[in-house]
Amino acid sequence: MICTMKAAILAVGSELLGTERLDTNSLALAALLERFGVDLIVKSVIGDDEQAIADELTARLQQADLVLLTGGLGPTEDDRTRAATARALGRGLQVDEAWVEHIRKLFASFGRVMPEVNRRQAEVIDGAEMLENRRGSAPGQKLEHEGRHIFLFPGVPREMKGMMVDHLEPFLAAQSKSESAVERRTLKVACLPESEVEQRIKEVYTTYGRDAIAVLASPGDIRVQGSAKGTAEQRAEILDPMMADLRRAIGPAVYGEGEQQLEEVVGELLQAASMRVVTAESCTGGLIAERLTRTPGSSAWLEGGFVTYSYGLKTLLLGVKTETLETWGAVSEQVVVDMARGALSRCRSELAIAVSGIAGPGGATDEKPVGTVHFALAGPGEHEVEHRQVIFPGDREQVRRMTSQMALDMIRRKLLDLGAELSAGSAEETSP
Amino acid sequence: MICTMKAAILAVGSELLGTERLDTNSLALAALLERFGVDLIVKSVIGDDEQAIADELTARLQQADLVLLTGGLGPTEDDRTRAATARALGRGLQVDEAWVEHIRKLFASFGRVMPEVNRRQAEVIDGAEMLENRRGSAPGQKLEHEGRHIFLFPGVPREMKGMMVDHLEPFLAAQSKSESAVERRTLKVACLPESEVEQRIKEVYTTYGRDAIAVLASPGDIRVQGSAKGTAEQRAEILDPMMADLRRAIGPAVYGEGEQQLEEVVGELLQAASMRVVTAESCTGGLIAERLTRTPGSSAWLEGGFVTYSYGLKTLLLGVKTETLETWGAVSEQVVVDMARGALSRCRSELAIAVSGIAGPGGATDEKPVGTVHFALAGPGEHEVEHRQVIFPGDREQVRRMTSQMALDMIRRKLLDLGAELSAGSAEETSP
Repeated sequence: MICTMKAAILAVGSELLGTERLDTNSLALAALLERFGVDLIVKSVIGDDEQAIADELTARLQQADLVLLTGGLGPTEDDRTRAATARALGRGLQVDEAWVEHIRKLFASFGRVMPEVNRRQAEVIDGAEMLENRRGSAPGQKLEHEGRHIFLFPGVPREMKGMMVDHLEPFLAAQSKSESAVERRTLKVACLPESEVEQRIKEVYTTYGRDAIAVLASPGDIRVQGSAKGTAEQRAEILDPMMADLRRAIGPAVYGEGEQQLEEVVGELLQAASMRVVTAESCTGGLIAERLTRTPGSSAWLEGGFVTYSYGLKTLLLGVKTETLETWGAVSEQVVVDMARGALSRCRSELAIAVSGIAGPGGATDEKPVGTVHFALAGPGEHEVEHRQVIFPGDREQVRRMTSQMALDMIRRKLLDLGAELSAGSAEETSP
Repeated sequence: MICTMKAAILAVGSELLGTERLDTNSLALAALLERFGVDLIVKSVIGDDEQAIADELTARLQQADLVLLTGGLGPTEDDRTRAATARALGRGLQVDEAWVEHIRKLFASFGRVMPEVNRRQAEVIDGAEMLENRRGSAPGQKLEHEGRHIFLFPGVPREMKGMMVDHLEPFLAAQSKSESAVERRTLKVACLPESEVEQRIKEVYTTYGRDAIAVLASPGDIRVQGSAKGTAEQRAEILDPMMADLRRAIGPAVYGEGEQQLEEVVGELLQAASMRVVTAESCTGGLIAERLTRTPGSSAWLEGGFVTYSYGLKTLLLGVKTETLETWGAVSEQVVVDMARGALSRCRSELAIAVSGIAGPGGATDEKPVGTVHFALAGPGEHEVEHRQVIFPGDREQVRRMTSQMALDMIRRKLLDLGAELSAGSAEETSP
């Protein structure tokens, strides 16, 4: 990759060193940094200990041009980030009465009286710019120190994300106006092996150079990134054709850009087509429906779903015949096709997706190893059914995740095909 | 908390600095460390850069007695952890032909020829003990350096977890035989506010001291930890009565111990009672069924489920009357009770759980704010239905998660009550 500004993330909070919670804020920050071509070189999590936070910040300022701290800006004794930053930089910390008033008014607007302890949130590090928080009482702070930039953000994800957009994004946008800024754009690809993606984009590498393109793979979901350096115009001159070439080379497996999630894209396509889907799930146990309902407004595209874990329910709710189950087994083309047809005929939806598989660790046979999954997509016509069979690698969780990914992608492909049929004669390729 | 040995985790891998993946290995490691009373003071993620890994390790060896590195033990050029560790410690790195043979045999046992590149995995740091990996080709390494302990584990979670059990646990167990070892035990508590837990255990604090007990809260799920220092007998003498007192003080909201998940406990209770459950979900979109099917063998306790997102499906699949929906709205006691009854009467299950709520951000009214959720649990008798209404704080994701948590907890409470009825006259309190 082309080299650029270096960033470090430092998440503060003893709860993030426990056994249940991870620093998810860093994913949102990483996405924004990536968009502006900033290299995230390290991230760390540290407890609510003032000296430890100060030491960690000091070390990161040796390594990075930009250090982002999250958490520890609350009003309690445990909230040490302000004091630790002041200590690391050798600066003072003063309560700013104007900010106290600001926070007091914020509480008043909710009909509450500000507890005196919240005065701590108005402690400003000498030389810092205070950053407004539209979603909570903890303001952030922004500092420059020996040519490095430091941001303090609250740890609550909703507040952190709001402040990231309000304050970090404009800062990065201003930096990116420089002539040596790096810009990255991302394509998202569903259900292709990494090696297949590499194969398809071989010629694009030749045109633009290996350093300009990166392929980042996770199971069932691949990100293809193009980078360019220069002024905004110079970057666009490189990236516009590069991304178009990549998209063409990879084909319709590209489902989105940037941070788009597959379930969001499927929801949007369903809404655009005025179609609704119903799910019939066995091995995924509700995961496909759960993903389709993560996005607000999902009632527009999801009618509902069946989780038919038992033979009995497959028969009772979806009308799969007992002899079909007994002859072919629940993990078979015959059963999954009947599941999809049954779901479609029982609900007022245009499409039905059904899955049945062996997520493991138990349940495998010689003919059907762990990871064997059958998919059927029924509709929009009464007799249209598409079947697919795959053997996924990995453990129970991975098989379930990849199954949900492929199920969503089958819906997406179907909607693209239907769109292509409607606009037949259009020059754009939309089927595999 | 009582002070003890200090640990640092260092996860290696550029993919963990991206926008999609987090270092989840650290959660399993944190749980094991916690069990043996080791304080995890910091964790960090660093890319595949030899110098950067070496620098980070050097810094952590100044701070911690035990440093756990995960990732970067593969056979490719990107796998730098071995070389970086050798560099940080100023030691050599030699290919050990005996280990090459070992890895070659491993490949042979899968009917494959070892690629020559895998010789790199047999590079041993001078003075290191090699650690067998039962689940993959990358051996780990264990070192002592100036009184510090260092473990190198692979990054693949399945392999890391296996090696953690095989190699780190015995090491920690041996350490804990010392007279100054710290032991921690954990109770898990569902659906109580943190303040309520604190209130209930006030007297236990008085008996054992504030430092001996910690309350760690996440939404809908709380961990209460007791710690004790000394020999194994001394620790048991303190912890046995302390944990019993905590359990009694908190009451039946305690659902498990250690790392048990609520969905696992519910599955076990259902299995023990030979009962099965069916779900009828609206706002959670399948999340309750999905959680109940995460555990292998879940077909024993989950019959299946309905995701009835639309009015139409609530009527069609669950028999909720259109006039009930129109009079009371989908988020109401009347509708959720009919959903549960409908699910129960349509499936061969003993229990049915139904939820309907407003996950947000849209859909709220003056009377029903975002976070309003109705629950109904029907069964085991035909006419038994329990209803509950709650308003959860937080965003869409949090409301959905807390809703699934409370739904699972209602099933758990019901099973405890049924157990208590069966064994009526028993001295143990099992209902709230």
